[in-house]
Amino acid sequence: MPSLPPFPALPPVPQPDPDLAARVQHRLNRKTKPQGALGAIEALALRLALIQGHEAPRLHAPQLLVCAADHGLSRQGTSAYPREVTAQMVANMLQGGAAVSVLARQHGLALTVADCGVDAPPHPEATPMRVRAAGGTDDASLVPAMTEAEAQACLARGMAWLEGRPGNALLLGEMGIGNTASASLLMHALTGTPLVDCVGRGTGLDDAGLAHKRAVLARAVAANPGATAPGASPWAVAAAFGGFEILTLAGAALAAAAQRRVIVVDGFITTAAVALAEALCPGVRHACVAAHASAEAAHRAWLGHLGLAPLLQLDLRLGEGSGAALAWPLLPAACALLNEMASFDSAGVSERAA
Amino acid sequence: MPSLPPFPALPPVPQPDPDLAARVQHRLNRKTKPQGALGAIEALALRLALIQGHEAPRLHAPQLLVCAADHGLSRQGTSAYPREVTAQMVANMLQGGAAVSVLARQHGLALTVADCGVDAPPHPEATPMRVRAAGGTDDASLVPAMTEAEAQACLARGMAWLEGRPGNALLLGEMGIGNTASASLLMHALTGTPLVDCVGRGTGLDDAGLAHKRAVLARAVAANPGATAPGASPWAVAAAFGGFEILTLAGAALAAAAQRRVIVVDGFITTAAVALAEALCPGVRHACVAAHASAEAAHRAWLGHLGLAPLLQLDLRLGEGSGAALAWPLLPAACALLNEMASFDSAGVSERAA
Repeated sequence: MPSLPPFPALPPVPQPDPDLAARVQHRLNRKTKPQGALGAIEALALRLALIQGHEAPRLHAPQLLVCAADHGLSRQGTSAYPREVTAQMVANMLQGGAAVSVLARQHGLALTVADCGVDAPPHPEATPMRVRAAGGTDDASLVPAMTEAEAQACLARGMAWLEGRPGNALLLGEMGIGNTASASLLMHALTGTPLVDCVGRGTGLDDAGLAHKRAVLARAVAANPGATAPGASPWAVAAAFGGFEILTLAGAALAAAAQRRVIVVDGFITTAAVALAEALCPGVRHACVAAHASAEAAHRAWLGHLGLAPLLQLDLRLGEGSGAALAWPLLPAACALLNEMASFDSAGVSERAA
Repeated sequence: MPSLPPFPALPPVPQPDPDLAARVQHRLNRKTKPQGALGAIEALALRLALIQGHEAPRLHAPQLLVCAADHGLSRQGTSAYPREVTAQMVANMLQGGAAVSVLARQHGLALTVADCGVDAPPHPEATPMRVRAAGGTDDASLVPAMTEAEAQACLARGMAWLEGRPGNALLLGEMGIGNTASASLLMHALTGTPLVDCVGRGTGLDDAGLAHKRAVLARAVAANPGATAPGASPWAVAAAFGGFEILTLAGAALAAAAQRRVIVVDGFITTAAVALAEALCPGVRHACVAAHASAEAAHRAWLGHLGLAPLLQLDLRLGEGSGAALAWPLLPAACALLNEMASFDSAGVSERAA
């Protein structure tokens, strides 16, 4: 399939300002603590300042976007859970009983649950963002999961959604039975990592289930040769292996980066979303904070590809945005430390011997 | 020196209830998520339930106690910072400019800064808890840091302070130039770990500084043979190597455990405090949550001795209670997940295939 023309003018994404980085690092070094004693929290404060382009970063009205969709590929039995769980969990999230619902309430995150292609009648309270009335993607072990036009439509919806939201931080979440399989294929295609190293147990496959998943994904790679050919366009990769929820999140992330909003990445699937956004618009990764390294083995490797250091390591393997929501309080804490801590000079504290 | 009689009836510390543990684990397993998918947060929720002795743990009015004191041993140059920094940082904490002050405000923690033996005129706003008018301990490389009677007085003050405070959670913090040296000696004496493996760079010693610190601590061990003799009493260990701040924190922790309050351990020095409390009253460790594994190499090993798994790994090496304050939001989040998440039954979500 010939590549589509470039998607309607993807927005420019700001790059980190090295002069600002030097100024913020100097401020951090003058705070009343040994240099670097706040470890990863200092790196986080610096990153937030660079994203906002401001020495005194502040966060407000954080938005947690959970995109849900089903995957044709999951008909091949790549998940430990039945397909209907996607729709059931959308309802559970909207009723307030899912982990992400509880954590969003707990931490003051505005939760949006978007139906990007669930294989069930639309939930009346879900934000409607389908590109196909029928629901989920096609079976990528046989054909591309979607057309490139559908991939672009998903991205456009994610971008438009974000642009209408208040605040300056976006937390990413997802729900979709079988979507670790989609993310594994995207990792393989985008990073060149051998497929076997991109595939894990998802929400809890046993050894036999893992072997089956690997075989199915190898068939998907074989069925979509254009997506792993040298120089394959990100659109071709997205269409072959993407999920509607992953593409929509990529659009929201892309727009967030362009607007200097902070993007909080959750687990393996939302990492796929920002990796796709990065492939389309280099620089999106600089707007990202990795909430955690999940129990999915490939997740940490992919974060490394993107230059992202995870904040938490709690063996989470739930998705939904639960890790992003758990890590969230570290971000305003990092801002507060940068903005409110005294310096050696202002507090009259002696420094270490030279 | 003969041992003192047992300290005035140390309170009994509750032990975890295995029946309650089974009930809470069952509740966690029925939540709408794959079993164990919230990783360390599930273990945390279970731990909080066991500490409170209740299936639905709730936290309120958390107290952050920062105990400050100076150490005679630091006159031997075991720290990268001059001794006057202890008093300067007490003032900075009370003025709101220290990291722990910022984080306490950020997370709604009631901050108490206690002067347990600072080598300077008392700060008018510090909570007075000195057992010696003159301030800090004696130089443990020459003589015991304090008498056993002083150690007991510190403990009693910590206990009395805690008993007068509201809430059901205690976060531990400390300030004392040279107190990683004291904690290293306590680790060596309490755990039998070779001294060399108990000594680290503190707030930032270079190689020469580290070698000097190790030599000084070896002299302290030699100067206090009774503290490392087989069967040495915890009081003898505390008197030989303790800091006044560490003993006071141990008292607060001991009383907190007896009252089923949750204890949030910060870094290496507060770990020394709860290890001493555990040596005096076995079971205190069950009331503890380890906020983080610090950059101090011995810290993780000591947490392991106590059966504590750290929540955060952020390369923090500040102390003050900063790590405890950073980790704090995970605790109410864990309670909320246990108390508010729907079950498979209540939410009508399908379970995995058998």
